[in-house]
Amino acid sequence: MLASKQKKKKYLSYLIRPRSIALVGASANKSKIGGIIWSYLQSFSGKKYPVNIKQETIDGIRTYNRIIDIPEEVDLAIIAVPAKNVPSVIDDCIEKNVKAAIIISSGFSEIGEQGKKLEDEIKNKISSTNLVVLGPNTLGVYVPSIGLDSMFVVKEKSRRPGKGPIAYISQSGASAVGFMDMAEYHHYGISAFVGLGNKLDVNENDMLELFCDEKDTKVICMHLESIVDGQRLLKLCKKITPSKPVIILKAGRSEAGARAAMLHTGSMAKPSQAMDGAFKQVGIIKANDMLELFDYSRILAYQKPMFGPNVAVVTSGGGYGVIATDYIEDSSVGGGLRMAEISIRSKEKLREKLPGFASVNNPIDLTGNVTDEMFDHAFNVVNEDENVDGILSFPLIQTPLTTDKLVEITEWWFKNGKKPMVPCIIGGSYSEEVIRKLEARGVPVFPDIRRAVLSLRVLYERGKYLMKVKKGEKFKFEKRE
Amino acid sequence: MLASKQKKKKYLSYLIRPRSIALVGASANKSKIGGIIWSYLQSFSGKKYPVNIKQETIDGIRTYNRIIDIPEEVDLAIIAVPAKNVPSVIDDCIEKNVKAAIIISSGFSEIGEQGKKLEDEIKNKISSTNLVVLGPNTLGVYVPSIGLDSMFVVKEKSRRPGKGPIAYISQSGASAVGFMDMAEYHHYGISAFVGLGNKLDVNENDMLELFCDEKDTKVICMHLESIVDGQRLLKLCKKITPSKPVIILKAGRSEAGARAAMLHTGSMAKPSQAMDGAFKQVGIIKANDMLELFDYSRILAYQKPMFGPNVAVVTSGGGYGVIATDYIEDSSVGGGLRMAEISIRSKEKLREKLPGFASVNNPIDLTGNVTDEMFDHAFNVVNEDENVDGILSFPLIQTPLTTDKLVEITEWWFKNGKKPMVPCIIGGSYSEEVIRKLEARGVPVFPDIRRAVLSLRVLYERGKYLMKVKKGEKFKFEKRE
Repeated sequence: MLASKQKKKKYLSYLIRPRSIALVGASANKSKIGGIIWSYLQSFSGKKYPVNIKQETIDGIRTYNRIIDIPEEVDLAIIAVPAKNVPSVIDDCIEKNVKAAIIISSGFSEIGEQGKKLEDEIKNKISSTNLVVLGPNTLGVYVPSIGLDSMFVVKEKSRRPGKGPIAYISQSGASAVGFMDMAEYHHYGISAFVGLGNKLDVNENDMLELFCDEKDTKVICMHLESIVDGQRLLKLCKKITPSKPVIILKAGRSEAGARAAMLHTGSMAKPSQAMDGAFKQVGIIKANDMLELFDYSRILAYQKPMFGPNVAVVTSGGGYGVIATDYIEDSSVGGGLRMAEISIRSKEKLREKLPGFASVNNPIDLTGNVTDEMFDHAFNVVNEDENVDGILSFPLIQTPLTTDKLVEITEWWFKNGKKPMVPCIIGGSYSEEVIRKLEARGVPVFPDIRRAVLSLRVLYERGKYLMKVKKGEKFKFEKRE
Repeated sequence: MLASKQKKKKYLSYLIRPRSIALVGASANKSKIGGIIWSYLQSFSGKKYPVNIKQETIDGIRTYNRIIDIPEEVDLAIIAVPAKNVPSVIDDCIEKNVKAAIIISSGFSEIGEQGKKLEDEIKNKISSTNLVVLGPNTLGVYVPSIGLDSMFVVKEKSRRPGKGPIAYISQSGASAVGFMDMAEYHHYGISAFVGLGNKLDVNENDMLELFCDEKDTKVICMHLESIVDGQRLLKLCKKITPSKPVIILKAGRSEAGARAAMLHTGSMAKPSQAMDGAFKQVGIIKANDMLELFDYSRILAYQKPMFGPNVAVVTSGGGYGVIATDYIEDSSVGGGLRMAEISIRSKEKLREKLPGFASVNNPIDLTGNVTDEMFDHAFNVVNEDENVDGILSFPLIQTPLTTDKLVEITEWWFKNGKKPMVPCIIGGSYSEEVIRKLEARGVPVFPDIRRAVLSLRVLYERGKYLMKVKKGEKFKFEKRE
């Protein structure tokens, strides 16, 4: 049993690291699912074989009638044929000793009893084999580092993110489309996307096992509508979270939401009464929607944790500072964050280079006369202040004297500061330009004060958890210096 | 006393509807505040006079040494000279019988005792006159319909919104810059912006009096850091809110935030314990930050109220529907909204034109095969359903079969449906394009599920309030048909 488990774990990796792929249902017709996938598979760096019983060639390439006709080894089969034909394709996969299969096709348990039977039939077929099956009813996988893209949504409308440190697992295909499109726009990079679909075989716990050891993955984020085995999920997360943050959006929290989830994926979502506490216990960061999942995973991937609750707000808009303070001190948003007491020495240092009417209290208000250098100076001072654990950077980007150099300065402190920093920018066209520039440099920017404060809160939650599991002070010291 | 009050109220209108303006401190130097304002005043449709004691001409136009040298009547003086020179300019304004003055200059109570004395001096001067004074320490006013723009932030970085139904009053200049820049980007139109600054004379209650009767203004939104006279504010709002929604962001709600507000504007922010209840009582909609102020004012300006709690979610992304359901049913976000029970007749009608695997329960999931016509059909059905009070439109915009026509369909139902509809779209470049198109047609779009649900909640709060003050059922019937 253990041997089989380990083998299964090994086979899982072929879902995201195959050397060769067969596309069953490959088509020359670009308006068909098998046509879209075949065209996007051309970027795959390994071998790819089109399987189609009706077409002899696709774009001049010879097709195979069945997987078993392919003369070489096949690591991954991507299946895009009508549901009723899938069981026989699975037979072929088993015969050919394919390691992993993705059933893109829909028409299974999500449509009711008849589809459920088809799923059971496939379950039976694979139960005594090592074949791992993802789906059905899924977008499949997307792994930018090897050009693997099984998603049947056209790139013109739905872009794909670049390479990066985040593994993204979603039980909702639709949300995944919106999420990844948004990710590309914000230069949010992923190591792999895996769409779970109906979870006939592969589920979220398998993904935790897979990405736990996957070295390109620094953060795991999951959008789930049901939880297959909560105890196992918690156990796995307890093992993973000391080294990699795990963020989970469990949709279907309300009773009506759970009903909607059941109708949507055919899986029963369990009520979440005790879930929040258990999640927190094992270091899971909870997200309430796609945007939180997006924000928390990118800030945890690109920024260091925060090892105390004290936030310095560095702004050039006095009114911004007041609103930020309200959110930081409101426990329902800040969750225990508080405004740092800027040290007397820091205040003196700030005064050296700031205009007389600037405020050196927290929020530090550099005023509308702020220059790039003043921001640089203020970031320096708060990074050195022992009373400060994290920084909210909130420039009024429309003031006259700051320039493009502020982008560089913000990037530098975001990446090299001792304390974690979260940037917030609000405005229109010019702000959008600045945000695009910063995000292209790997600096996530929040166009919403509340989202920025929530992200700081998550960095602090992460810091508290690490101090707990790594026995506190020593770790704190190590990370700070 | 009453006579003087009425006169003052009349004079207030010269702040936003002057026939002639004198700019004291006008300059030919475009990097000076008086230079920026003079250049933007060129778009003003009335008469404008540059006042500058040092320069003979500005761009070939003859300047005046003092306001009293101007041979014709001056309705509004905009003052942009150093703080210490302001009192003598106020003397001139009184002598010249100017109706309203805006003190742009900073260096008053916000810098401490010395500035406070200057303010008191000006207060004394105007106390026995009808001159109304806005500021000091303010961006002044912006009234797109007459090209009046006293804001000294350059348009390259900080764009100005177009004409529209929203009056925007802000005590924070910085936030106003960010807010209006954002407003322009989202085609949010304003009737007027007024920056309150230090509120030496004119305050938020004067603004409520002014915009109460201002026919271009359908919605009043205010960003306040202090409240001068809470009782009067509530009394005024009670009078206004039955006909015009009032949305207030009271920043400085936390103790630390109130301290920050005091440091920032020199005004003491009162604790807000009982405020929420009192606000609700008189129909004020409360916003927690700039984005909520923005969202609530635009949805109230462009969409009808909601006269019951039942929301129909129309989506093409099953996962989207689940998250939306969670928020609608979560009272901390939905605030009493709930998922509508779609009627049997509506379900039948939906099934007529939807694919078999679509869900006709709520959330209504049109699936990835959705066409423009299916959205049109679904919007029609839920608008006719007696069980539905409002609609969340949440297309997965990346699906292949919908086209640009969906923009027109969404616009039509947004503007002509019997039930209020709030659109939510999430994604990247293509979504941004669609959102830009919809917003250019006057349809606000929310790129965030939580914000969309909060906006529906606000429409429902507004509906409940109107039913209460207008004695319910009759009004409900009128608005629905």
